[in-house]
Amino acid sequence: MDNTEIIGFAAAILTTAAFLPQVYKTWRTKDVSSLSLPMLVIFFIGIVMWLWYGILKNSPSMIFANSITVISSFLLMYFKVKYTKK
Amino acid sequence: MDNTEIIGFAAAILTTAAFLPQVYKTWRTKDVSSLSLPMLVIFFIGIVMWLWYGILKNSPSMIFANSITVISSFLLMYFKVKYTKK
Repeated sequence: MDNTEIIGFAAAILTTAAFLPQVYKTWRTKDVSSLSLPMLVIFFIGIVMWLWYGILKNSPSMIFANSITVISSFLLMYFKVKYTKK
Repeated sequence: MDNTEIIGFAAAILTTAAFLPQVYKTWRTKDVSSLSLPMLVIFFIGIVMWLWYGILKNSPSMIFANSITVISSFLLMYFKVKYTKK
């Protein structure tokens, strides 16, 4: 693994780890009032495209990061829809 | 610009645009209760490293996306600290 991929994996771990406190906090509190659904949906589609880009660029760190973030951002969308007061 | 960069720029526009409704909503409502400060800080550092990775990989779409997201995520951190009730 070259030095560039080491930086990529450090970035990948940080940006994917960043979602975990948010996913946990949202799941625990069921407080979704300050999460924006448009943000979550657009972000999810964007991450799917970054995953595609990472595959085309043969970038292991981008494939790793975006695979995990696809799942995390899907969970946040699900919580937002499930816990929003009718 | 090759096809891979077109996908990268589409991804870049979506993931950076995703932050704008959140930044606007947070600024307008000053409601930061369901934003997680640990998430915002870790995410910000991660985005700085993705920017570094994009520069090393000579990836125009990654440099574009991460430059903008560095600014957006910094603003969210600032709002979280400023608007959190003491």
